[in-house]
Amino acid sequence: DGGFFLIAGPCVVESDELNLRIGEALARLSDDLKLPIIYKASFDKANRSSPGSPRGPGVHEGLRKLQRVQEATGLPLITDVHLPEHCAAAAEIVDVLQIPAFLCRQTDLLVAAGATGKPVNVKKGQWMAPHEMRGAVAKVRGAGSPAVATTERGTFFGYGNLVVDMRSFALMREACDAPAIFDGTHSVQRPGEGGGISGGEPRFIPSLVRAAVVAGADALFLETHPEPAKGLSDTTNMLPLDRLRPLVEEVLALRAAMGMEAPRV
Amino acid sequence: DGGFFLIAGPCVVESDELNLRIGEALARLSDDLKLPIIYKASFDKANRSSPGSPRGPGVHEGLRKLQRVQEATGLPLITDVHLPEHCAAAAEIVDVLQIPAFLCRQTDLLVAAGATGKPVNVKKGQWMAPHEMRGAVAKVRGAGSPAVATTERGTFFGYGNLVVDMRSFALMREACDAPAIFDGTHSVQRPGEGGGISGGEPRFIPSLVRAAVVAGADALFLETHPEPAKGLSDTTNMLPLDRLRPLVEEVLALRAAMGMEAPRV
Amino acid sequence: DGGFFLIAGPCVVESDELNLRIGEALARLSDDLKLPIIYKASFDKANRSSPGSPRGPGVHEGLRKLQRVQEATGLPLITDVHLPEHCAAAAEIVDVLQIPAFLCRQTDLLVAAGATGKPVNVKKGQWMAPHEMRGAVAKVRGAGSPAVATTERGTFFGYGNLVVDMRSFALMREACDAPAIFDGTHSVQRPGEGGGISGGEPRFIPSLVRAAVVAGADALFLETHPEPAKGLSDTTNMLPLDRLRPLVEEVLALRAAMGMEAPRV
Amino acid sequence: DGGFFLIAGPCVVESDELNLRIGEALARLSDDLKLPIIYKASFDKANRSSPGSPRGPGVHEGLRKLQRVQEATGLPLITDVHLPEHCAAAAEIVDVLQIPAFLCRQTDLLVAAGATGKPVNVKKGQWMAPHEMRGAVAKVRGAGSPAVATTERGTFFGYGNLVVDMRSFALMREACDAPAIFDGTHSVQRPGEGGGISGGEPRFIPSLVRAAVVAGADALFLETHPEPAKGLSDTTNMLPLDRLRPLVEEVLALRAAMGMEAPRV
Repeated sequence: DGGFFLIAGPCVVESDELNLRIGEALARLSDDLKLPIIYKASFDKANRSSPGSPRGPGVHEGLRKLQRVQEATGLPLITDVHLPEHCAAAAEIVDVLQIPAFLCRQTDLLVAAGATGKPVNVKKGQWMAPHEMRGAVAKVRGAGSPAVATTERGTFFGYGNLVVDMRSFALMREACDAPAIFDGTHSVQRPGEGGGISGGEPRFIPSLVRAAVVAGADALFLETHPEPAKGLSDTTNMLPLDRLRPLVEEVLALRAAMGMEAPRV
Repeated sequence: DGGFFLIAGPCVVESDELNLRIGEALARLSDDLKLPIIYKASFDKANRSSPGSPRGPGVHEGLRKLQRVQEATGLPLITDVHLPEHCAAAAEIVDVLQIPAFLCRQTDLLVAAGATGKPVNVKKGQWMAPHEMRGAVAKVRGAGSPAVATTERGTFFGYGNLVVDMRSFALMREACDAPAIFDGTHSVQRPGEGGGISGGEPRFIPSLVRAAVVAGADALFLETHPEPAKGLSDTTNMLPLDRLRPLVEEVLALRAAMGMEAPRV
Repeated sequence: DGGFFLIAGPCVVESDELNLRIGEALARLSDDLKLPIIYKASFDKANRSSPGSPRGPGVHEGLRKLQRVQEATGLPLITDVHLPEHCAAAAEIVDVLQIPAFLCRQTDLLVAAGATGKPVNVKKGQWMAPHEMRGAVAKVRGAGSPAVATTERGTFFGYGNLVVDMRSFALMREACDAPAIFDGTHSVQRPGEGGGISGGEPRFIPSLVRAAVVAGADALFLETHPEPAKGLSDTTNMLPLDRLRPLVEEVLALRAAMGMEAPRV
Repeated sequence: DGGFFLIAGPCVVESDELNLRIGEALARLSDDLKLPIIYKASFDKANRSSPGSPRGPGVHEGLRKLQRVQEATGLPLITDVHLPEHCAAAAEIVDVLQIPAFLCRQTDLLVAAGATGKPVNVKKGQWMAPHEMRGAVAKVRGAGSPAVATTERGTFFGYGNLVVDMRSFALMREACDAPAIFDGTHSVQRPGEGGGISGGEPRFIPSLVRAAVVAGADALFLETHPEPAKGLSDTTNMLPLDRLRPLVEEVLALRAAMGMEAPRV
């Protein structure tokens, strides 16, 4: 309905115990702050840098595990889809489908996601201008999904580095007539700088998140884990779970200071 | 076998008449210059900027049309694959599979291509450092394809622009232990600058191609069409067919001047 | 003393009437908000894009005009120096010397500025990493100026575009042990995009300024003019004078929301 | 007269013995290859990264040392000017004045150089589009110098890296109606990556030089030293003197292969 919200969770579906531990923390945060939170985890990491990196439980098992989080916490779910045939299966379980940045130009995937009628979040490729997202959003909408969002997750800024262009939120929103979300954890990746994995600089998450919110981001995306270094993916750029609440509280205080209405579940 | 070669053809599979007209010109060029040429056309443009742009004849019809070119000209074939299930079907007809730049991180696609045992050409994503191609090549090789090449097709250089880093050929070759090809026509694209299609500056094709060859590119990739503006895709960046022969002759002269051995079919 | 402050004024010294009009507005703003404001104007635009563009009144007349603003408003002054011999003359009148971004590597200029003992603000070149400012600051400090600041004014992001890297404030502060200021008006320039002058997108000033402040900028730099289009320089990127107060009030509200102490004159 | 030529020499004026040793090698090369060579060395390194780095002998002593090279070898001279007052003094000794990249927007310097009537070479700033050089060239020409050249020395490509855009030579030549030179040694710098000095990757000099020549560079600029690591500046990116001749021979062979006329003194 246009209000502020948060997409959060571990990068990849982990054990039920860990998924739930994160989910329960997010559900409490949502209740306490009256902030809508969508639980995010991927059932498959389909584009790891190296062939030997773990990929997750796969679509069948992954969706079952996500469903358990939903049942236990009541949180709505979002997950990545990588192939057209995943879309219908995922749409039976999750509330929102997400198109990974690398795949935001793949027409068949966008159309299959849109054809589910579910809301779809399309991440902007690291090589694209904000206005280039117009075509991606049009493909999803044209296929039948009325609710589409876009996400900025950092733009190529020389080999091994990304920059967040704070003009991007306004430019994507104008070009696409859709909310523009800020992904504050992938934006601090250092691609190819980790010796076969993507490196990262998580210390910049809070300042970039604050900046994005006051620059006009409509919502936030933050991968979080109790112990990022022990995660199965994105170990170098997730936000420690205990850092999430203070950051979100700070963000809500900034929004209030700007006269932006309070979120509500 | 390590010698110089050319991948050329229209961006997308067109009518049989046009496919053959281009194929026959390429076959003559190959004979005249003793230069191995692989005929390239895509059966599907799976990542057009806009939802309404034409996509090509599809996998079944497209592969049949490619086969006709092969039968008429004797040229080996290369085509793009966009989904894992395309790989085996394409491998029955074509000699080389190609992974599009946007998809060079998709593990399932790389593995399916490698599993055919065919040679595979992986294009470097516009957001990647040359050395980051190591993982992509390892995925293809690990799946069973012994012959892998990489292709530089321009790197993000600010919104709407690409730059060709001439260090890329040496860096990719070192990182991947594989030939590094230069795509001289996609490198002159101006992404998102054409009002819903990718723009281009084809006047820079010859100078970039010459530069890449003397900087160390192992082979060339050039989309060509008798009348680029009438093509079904990439109308703003293909090389006019009658400009191909003089450019290739110039390239061979430069290679000879550097003491690089003559190509031979 | 480490508190928040604002550098503001017209790009170039204009008529006494206009200089004063801007100065009086700034003095009122400073009083009303208890915000230290330093009045900025250049006596010479020494690096215009085109040979025919106006340059300002020159060092002698320019400094006299600045002094009149100071006498009438009580505001401290800052001005650009472009040649070593300007430093001592400027230091007799103004309170802070400023090194333009293009000149931030010129040792003689940095040393001459530092030798005045005055505070010096060094703008970061558009081609430099934040940590590269360490050498510039060391040159000024080594020459005798104890109070040095650095300023982010946008970084090259492809031809004709700049991006503000919001990590820059923390990185410059760490590398230089000096306050990191955000220049919110030059950062929206579009260099070379205005047909012989620098273009600009002033509509992004507020969002970038808000973002910079919550990302950690220690102070702000904003060129302002009652009618930017009638200014003698930077006509496409100055902030209209009547937009300054609401923006500064918003910034102070954001700082208060983050628990950063109130500014005070 | 429009023919191909080479600017070469040590980065900074060194001892008479070393200056001459390099000059004599260059004079022999010029004779042997019928290639016009202009001897280059700077009397002052006015923009070192760090305050403690050596700067050279200064304008008076530096020009005397350059004159000795000229007397002994007969080579014409080029040197950098950093301040307007250097121009007339330098013009008494050297044949061509050079504007450093960082200073290519400083109107007074460009005008003072142009007012000498000597040929002037203006290096393109690392933050500028090729067409933005038009204003710099106009300033020099307007001041009285009929012969102006521009030089590409690499463009910002993320923190700590430069890229050579091979389109730059055509674009600068068109925008400025002036020869476009390629600086093959500064283009391999890694700014700020050397811990207080600029790093470099000299292994890429030959491939970039070859590429630039066939992409349309009108002339070359190469800093050279018998033992780069013992040089007083640019130790990480100069070309070893014994590598210069084979590289120039290769370049001339490439030019001949393209049907470009032979150089002649």
